[in-house]
Amino acid sequence: MPVTVVGSIAFDAVKTASGEREKMLGGAAVHFALAASFFDEVRVVGPVGDDFGEAELTVLRTRGVDVSDVEHVAGGRTFFWKGEYSWDFNERETLDTQLNVFEHFDPKLSDASRSSEVLFLANIVPDLQRQVRQQCPDARFVALDSMNLWIDIARDSLVETIGMVDCLILNDGELRQLTGQAKLVGAAREVLSWGGPSVVVAKLGEYGAALITAEDYFQMPAFPLSTVVDPTGAGDTFAGGFVGYIAAHPGEERSPEMLRRAMAYGTVIASYNVEEFGTERVARLTGPEIADRVAELERMMHFSDSPIQLRG
Amino acid sequence: MPVTVVGSIAFDAVKTASGEREKMLGGAAVHFALAASFFDEVRVVGPVGDDFGEAELTVLRTRGVDVSDVEHVAGGRTFFWKGEYSWDFNERETLDTQLNVFEHFDPKLSDASRSSEVLFLANIVPDLQRQVRQQCPDARFVALDSMNLWIDIARDSLVETIGMVDCLILNDGELRQLTGQAKLVGAAREVLSWGGPSVVVAKLGEYGAALITAEDYFQMPAFPLSTVVDPTGAGDTFAGGFVGYIAAHPGEERSPEMLRRAMAYGTVIASYNVEEFGTERVARLTGPEIADRVAELERMMHFSDSPIQLRG
Repeated sequence: MPVTVVGSIAFDAVKTASGEREKMLGGAAVHFALAASFFDEVRVVGPVGDDFGEAELTVLRTRGVDVSDVEHVAGGRTFFWKGEYSWDFNERETLDTQLNVFEHFDPKLSDASRSSEVLFLANIVPDLQRQVRQQCPDARFVALDSMNLWIDIARDSLVETIGMVDCLILNDGELRQLTGQAKLVGAAREVLSWGGPSVVVAKLGEYGAALITAEDYFQMPAFPLSTVVDPTGAGDTFAGGFVGYIAAHPGEERSPEMLRRAMAYGTVIASYNVEEFGTERVARLTGPEIADRVAELERMMHFSDSPIQLRG
Repeated sequence: MPVTVVGSIAFDAVKTASGEREKMLGGAAVHFALAASFFDEVRVVGPVGDDFGEAELTVLRTRGVDVSDVEHVAGGRTFFWKGEYSWDFNERETLDTQLNVFEHFDPKLSDASRSSEVLFLANIVPDLQRQVRQQCPDARFVALDSMNLWIDIARDSLVETIGMVDCLILNDGELRQLTGQAKLVGAAREVLSWGGPSVVVAKLGEYGAALITAEDYFQMPAFPLSTVVDPTGAGDTFAGGFVGYIAAHPGEERSPEMLRRAMAYGTVIASYNVEEFGTERVARLTGPEIADRVAELERMMHFSDSPIQLRG
C-alpha cells in the first residue's frame, strides 16, 4: 500500500565526534520517506524554501519517492536545525532552530496523498496532525510521532490526536511523561486503553525499541555498531522501516510476528542511517544490505533455554 | 561448582514511589548470594557489626548459603546505605553512607572459600579484589563488578585487577568511562583486548543487559514489569543468576548458547528482586517461578524473519 508522510523537510548542520556538516538534507519526512521507500511508494508532504533545489529532490526521486506534494514556498527558506552531539552521542544540544517556511505550514494533500492507505504523521504540532488525519479518511494504518514540547504545551490536543491513530511511536521518556506512568509497560498500557492506538512503539535510543500491544511485549536491541557517525534522523528512519514493512503487507493481519518483523526492518535501516551523516548512507542503501543485517539480527537474538535443576 | 562471593553486607534504608524501609538487609554480596543459591552452594565473605543478628543470617541460611566467612567485627556497626529513587526510578540520590566495619575490611577466606572454583568479586576497592583473587588460585571462573568511583580514583589498580579475571560486569556508562570508547561494542572489545576477561557483561539498567565476547553480541531486555517497588540490588542479583548458572555447568564449554542462558537466569531473578523491597521477594522465590519467567522470556524474544521483496 502506498504511504503518505507529512512532516518536516530540512537542512541540518551537525557536529559529532566523527566530524561535521554545515548544511545537509534532513527532516523527519525525508528520513522516513527514504526508509519506507524500500517497501512501497511514498508520498512526501511538506514545505521547502527557495534554497531547496533539484539536488535535494533528486535524493528522494532516486529512491522512487513521489515529491509532487513537496510544497515550494516562494521567497521562503527551508527549515533549518543545527545541533551538536556529546562524545558518546548520549546528549545533544540544539544550537539553532529556524522554522522558516515551516512556521506557517498548512498541509495541502493532493488526491494521491489523501488516498494512501498508510499514513505517517511525523512530529509537528498536534492540531495539524489531526487536520491531516481528517483529510485521509481511507487510511487503514496511521502512525504518529510527537515530542516532549507538545506534551508540555499542547497535551490535550495531542491526546485527542493520538485517539485517532492506530500506532503511537514515541521515546520511552516521552511515553512516561505523557501518561505519568513510571514504567514503560504501564505507560504503553495506558495509551492502549485510550481507544485509539492498538500498537505502541517506544524508541529506546541506543538500546533499541520496544513494541507493546494488548497481547505482546517485544524489545529489539539496536543493531550493535562499534562506531556511529551521526544519529540524526535515526528515529524517523526506524519509523520509515517499521511503517513501510506494514504497508508492504496489505492483506495480512497485524500479528505479533508481523509487527516484530517490522521492528527488525526499522532497526536495520536505522543502523545504516547512523553510520554516515544525514541521509548519505540510506540514499545508496540496497535491499540485499538490509536483508543481510536482518538475518544477522535474527541470529543475534536467538535464545532457547534448556532445562536445569534449580535449588529451591 | 561452589561459588565464593566477596563484598558488602549491609543495612539499607530506601525510599521509592512505592513506599519506604528504614532498615533492611542488603549489600552486594547478599543480593548476589541469594540469587546464586538457586544453582549451587554459595560462600559469603564480608564483615558485619554487632547490629547484624540471627534474623539476617537466617535469610541467607534458609537459601542454603554458607555464612561461615561472614566476619563479625565486635564493637562495630554494619555498613549502612540510605537512598531515594525518583518517581520513574531513573535517578537515585544517596542520602547517607556509613562504611562502618567495611572501612577496614581485610578479606579473610577460609579454606572452603578459597577452594571455590567460581569467584565473584563484588564492587569493593580494586586492591582488595586483587588480593582476594590471589587467594583463590584454583578459581576457574572469576567475575568482577566495579563502579565509577574506582575508575575515577584508582583506575590503574582496577585495570590491573580486571586483567586477572574472566568476566567483567559493569554498567554500560562505566564501560565507556573506563575505556574512553563512545559505543558499548567498542568499549567491550577494548576490554576483551586486555588479555584478561573473555566475557564482558554490560548492565543497561531498565533496558536489560548485553553480553559481548570475541565471537558474540547478545542483548537481553529486562523482564517487562508494569510496576517496580525497589531496584536496589538488581545488578548484583543479576550477577548472582548469571554467575550461578555458569557455576552449575562445570564441565561445559562457555559457549554463546550457555552464556545467553546464563543472561536469562540473571535477568529473571533480578526481575523478581525489584518487585519488593530489598531481599524480600528473592528470599521466598522458588525454582518453578524462575523457570516460568525464563520460558516467558524465551517466547518474548522470539524473532524469525520471512523473505520480503525490497525495492532497490
